[in-house]
Amino acid sequence: MQKPLILITNDDGVFAPGIRFLSQVASKYGEIVVVAPDKPQSGMGHAITINATLRLQKTNYHNASIEMACSGTPVDCVKMAVNHVLKRRPDLVLSGINHGSNSSINVIYSGTMSAAIEGALEGSRSIGFSLCDYSIDADFTPCESFVSSLIEKALSHSMPKGVCLNVNLPKLAANAIKGIKVVRQAKAQWIERFEERKDPYGRDYYWLTGEFVNFEPESTDTDEWALANGYVSVVPTMVDLTAHGAISQLKIFES
Amino acid sequence: MQKPLILITNDDGVFAPGIRFLSQVASKYGEIVVVAPDKPQSGMGHAITINATLRLQKTNYHNASIEMACSGTPVDCVKMAVNHVLKRRPDLVLSGINHGSNSSINVIYSGTMSAAIEGALEGSRSIGFSLCDYSIDADFTPCESFVSSLIEKALSHSMPKGVCLNVNLPKLAANAIKGIKVVRQAKAQWIERFEERKDPYGRDYYWLTGEFVNFEPESTDTDEWALANGYVSVVPTMVDLTAHGAISQLKIFES
Repeated sequence: MQKPLILITNDDGVFAPGIRFLSQVASKYGEIVVVAPDKPQSGMGHAITINATLRLQKTNYHNASIEMACSGTPVDCVKMAVNHVLKRRPDLVLSGINHGSNSSINVIYSGTMSAAIEGALEGSRSIGFSLCDYSIDADFTPCESFVSSLIEKALSHSMPKGVCLNVNLPKLAANAIKGIKVVRQAKAQWIERFEERKDPYGRDYYWLTGEFVNFEPESTDTDEWALANGYVSVVPTMVDLTAHGAISQLKIFES
Repeated sequence: MQKPLILITNDDGVFAPGIRFLSQVASKYGEIVVVAPDKPQSGMGHAITINATLRLQKTNYHNASIEMACSGTPVDCVKMAVNHVLKRRPDLVLSGINHGSNSSINVIYSGTMSAAIEGALEGSRSIGFSLCDYSIDADFTPCESFVSSLIEKALSHSMPKGVCLNVNLPKLAANAIKGIKVVRQAKAQWIERFEERKDPYGRDYYWLTGEFVNFEPESTDTDEWALANGYVSVVPTMVDLTAHGAISQLKIFES
């Protein structure tokens, strides 16, 4: 029997420790192909490259059968891998492990999760992994058994069409992680603040900063609750931005 | 009584004809503030700028009380406008008019719609407008009465929290447009093809191209159907990427 084909990407770039950890864990379960951005692409959301050209370059950082750095966004990487690099559809797309949380509202800004969503749109089973630790030196090893278990289950169970998993891993010691919860995305928001500075030439520039606010800290069926209580959170994620519940109310806009 | 405060942005850039047309139409209904990208940002999705600085520069292309070109993405523009430029929350955020369709799956790649979504997340009523004509010389005038009517209704009706409108305008003569339909996002996808070329130095590069496939051409309650049948499509749009229907099925991933 053919080994499962596992495509791996991320948004921190092909040389990030998080993707290396992921490709090592995943290599136990199949043939690994890595197509990942050639530079950090955090916050890129579902961006694609349509006004510029794309490049692919071979790299040699992972133990993969094919490994490429792509000049585009995380979503570009999945599209190029599936439609150009690979000869057959991957059995599983893995994105991450992101250095930093992609729970709740962060899912829409996240290149890591957009790549996972694109994997599901392209018809593969797909998982995005994020560790709640932004440090480049983050320790991924406490999560290894959970990452393994989710990959194993994803390969052995069918997934609803177009649905991927948004997995967030708490920053805890292995024996402090209580288990895995399948939950929904918490209602939350960033309250932004633009930090104003002057450049050496006296002109203003800005850094986007902000504070995360969970609007429903009491709800126990959300990813934020799971993470705050020592669980790995798994949110089944798909793209249908239609507010179905609002359609009848908004029929007033018809003419 | 204070005039409504209307924030206008887009993804084609502050100098695009589409945003100029929109600001002219909207100026009948309130005080106009324009904060839009300083260059085309098509396909940027919900990207935000976190690894680079942001700049704002005054421009003078619209008949607006404040007008700024921002070096960031469409979502950055809304965040900067709401949290830095404006003294009060806008009553209405308008994004567009995009040169090209943002119906169906295009909503996730669209900077125009991501800006509209961000407007709703920031607590304002919000509409993204797109004309199904990619040309820079597209004629927006046939749609004027529909754009006006939607702005007027949005200012006079409350909207469900977090929901914005994804409005697509067919490329038709004014008297050929049959009306406005409030519908859902059609299930569709792009089948990508990467066009391979050689640069003058003999190295490969690629252009993302593709073909749009509507998976449910028979359904009459979708945006694609409405547009194909001569209607303006209005999809109530919000960000909750949770596949709620899949949560119970995927409880098998818990441990």
